[in-house]
Amino acid sequence: MADIERRLRKLRALLRREKLDALIVSNEHNVRYLSGFTGDDSVLLVAREAAVLVTDSRYTEQAGKEVFPYGLEVVERKKSIAEALGVLVGKYGAAGVGFEGCNATVDFHKHLTDAMKRVALRPTMRLVEGLREIKDASEVKTVRRAVRAAEEGLRSTLPSIRPGVTEQDIAAELEYQMRKQGADASAFPIIVAGGERASLPHARPTKRRIRPGEAVLIDWGARLEFYNSDLTRVFFLGTIPSDWKKRYEIVLQAQRAALKVIRKGVMTKTVDRAARDVFKKRRLAKRFGHGLGHGVGLEVHEAPGVNRSSESKLKPGMIFTVEPGIYFPEWGGIRIEDMVLVKRTGVEVLTNFEKQFNQVVI
Amino acid sequence: MADIERRLRKLRALLRREKLDALIVSNEHNVRYLSGFTGDDSVLLVAREAAVLVTDSRYTEQAGKEVFPYGLEVVERKKSIAEALGVLVGKYGAAGVGFEGCNATVDFHKHLTDAMKRVALRPTMRLVEGLREIKDASEVKTVRRAVRAAEEGLRSTLPSIRPGVTEQDIAAELEYQMRKQGADASAFPIIVAGGERASLPHARPTKRRIRPGEAVLIDWGARLEFYNSDLTRVFFLGTIPSDWKKRYEIVLQAQRAALKVIRKGVMTKTVDRAARDVFKKRRLAKRFGHGLGHGVGLEVHEAPGVNRSSESKLKPGMIFTVEPGIYFPEWGGIRIEDMVLVKRTGVEVLTNFEKQFNQVVI
Repeated sequence: MADIERRLRKLRALLRREKLDALIVSNEHNVRYLSGFTGDDSVLLVAREAAVLVTDSRYTEQAGKEVFPYGLEVVERKKSIAEALGVLVGKYGAAGVGFEGCNATVDFHKHLTDAMKRVALRPTMRLVEGLREIKDASEVKTVRRAVRAAEEGLRSTLPSIRPGVTEQDIAAELEYQMRKQGADASAFPIIVAGGERASLPHARPTKRRIRPGEAVLIDWGARLEFYNSDLTRVFFLGTIPSDWKKRYEIVLQAQRAALKVIRKGVMTKTVDRAARDVFKKRRLAKRFGHGLGHGVGLEVHEAPGVNRSSESKLKPGMIFTVEPGIYFPEWGGIRIEDMVLVKRTGVEVLTNFEKQFNQVVI
Repeated sequence: MADIERRLRKLRALLRREKLDALIVSNEHNVRYLSGFTGDDSVLLVAREAAVLVTDSRYTEQAGKEVFPYGLEVVERKKSIAEALGVLVGKYGAAGVGFEGCNATVDFHKHLTDAMKRVALRPTMRLVEGLREIKDASEVKTVRRAVRAAEEGLRSTLPSIRPGVTEQDIAAELEYQMRKQGADASAFPIIVAGGERASLPHARPTKRRIRPGEAVLIDWGARLEFYNSDLTRVFFLGTIPSDWKKRYEIVLQAQRAALKVIRKGVMTKTVDRAARDVFKKRRLAKRFGHGLGHGVGLEVHEAPGVNRSSESKLKPGMIFTVEPGIYFPEWGGIRIEDMVLVKRTGVEVLTNFEKQFNQVVI
């Protein structure tokens, strides 16, 4: 309870700084973060003196149960969301009203403009996303549970990663095992890519059968009470060609180099560069086409970005992935992904799953 | 292959009518529909003489494999999507360019404006969504498979719907069984609501254990090759109070009344009213708080809407749900949901799963 009150207090401080009387929060993750509401299709108005969730009849009962304990109000709309917001903005006499420019569509903005004619509507830049970058204690706890559910789920799935099973079989088993470990669902569509298919960073599982002597890349995560985890491991079935082993060790080395520089105050792009430099030395820089990582929380991909062009500084409470990878069309790909938490001093790797090359399955 | 060419041809006819030289397609389902690309974070530019997918390095290899067969091009962007689009719009000399007003955010629109200064940018109203309302033969085939996977998945799950198991146990088993039946995943978070929890139309599964003498509402669907199904059934465990039985029969009657009026040329709101009138006669109109149904295809909820205020006319090739439901806080809820396909003559109910009250499990 205290968490949500603190979040609203921080947001209101930002609104004062921006000289706004109220904010229309339309991003569903932001709505959840600020209200505790777990449904969708609903918008939150945060004014100076009140926070009101605008929802529809499907959610009225649920919304009340979820947000009343935090002192929020619920309005069941009869017409459009914009019209209901127009009435509320009038009620609270808000003259300067912000909306989320990276979430509100051009159409929604037009409806808002029509519904609140005497109001100065202004796009805001990721105000709530900025707050969400720093996880509070309850969030860290839930992310830890999402990491555990993913790891234990994969551990229970390992016995079924055998030659002859399909990528889809492995994904089905992994989803089931994560749920048995307390996950509500996969955090995102599980990637299971055998052999050369791993050269596609976002391959979706097919009916292709896993063969002896090849690698299987698994990128998976659990969603648990709306928080996510995101991990990647590569498994080797039987005798492995030496080029795989060599490249695997390079990716692991790049990841270690990145983990080593993580601490508060460091620029996120410095962390990205630490890994990138390892690939550069091996003339593999072009094979590492994506960023090193991304924040994880209510969304699987959220702030901070950890890539060449990101301008954030690490702060205690940030949780993000460290996932160097190299890809070779027709050959395959290797990625190793862990999640880390920036602490007041140093960093904690939240993931425990083994990643030495020797964890070969038969 | 022919499908995608036909879709692009139809879209270009709409663009000519709208006096647009090109359309920026940012909705990922629309991108998929028009290009065959199965990734995300990518935008499609449909110009008169070319269709170009703007993607990033994670997807370049995959995008080529997926869209080259249809004659589309791929651009791997180095900077922002908007900048890459600006270059392309210049290359094709497009002066009037549409974007998707119900998908493009206010921020993205601003970036587009900055990246193409001499271009007249204009929001369009659900052009591609309009095409998607009418399913072509290959889509109908895939939706049928998604319906089958959902139904067979539930059938295999039935033996585990027993007193003592939790809502989450049932959801985990159902997800697994749907995947075993060929689904890529659940179409949406499975709803399993025991007893009074069914009064929340969008309840998410909890650790609550199913008890004898109560009802369990399951709202579930399969996603299969990006197409979805969406069904609801209510199961009764053992001896059931007569009020449940009575209300169940009323919902079934409302659904039959709606199914009876479905044929091409009928207004969707007329279908909604047919069900609503049954509830009105029983003074239950207020308990049916949502619309009767919605289109299903690449998205679980898409056009046409089937509710009091929808102004569409039924056309052959439309697929939508028919899902009357009544809800009583603290008591529970009953919803029966099937999917239908409008034919040249009459209607086909795509779902086969039994819905007579007598399908009680022990």
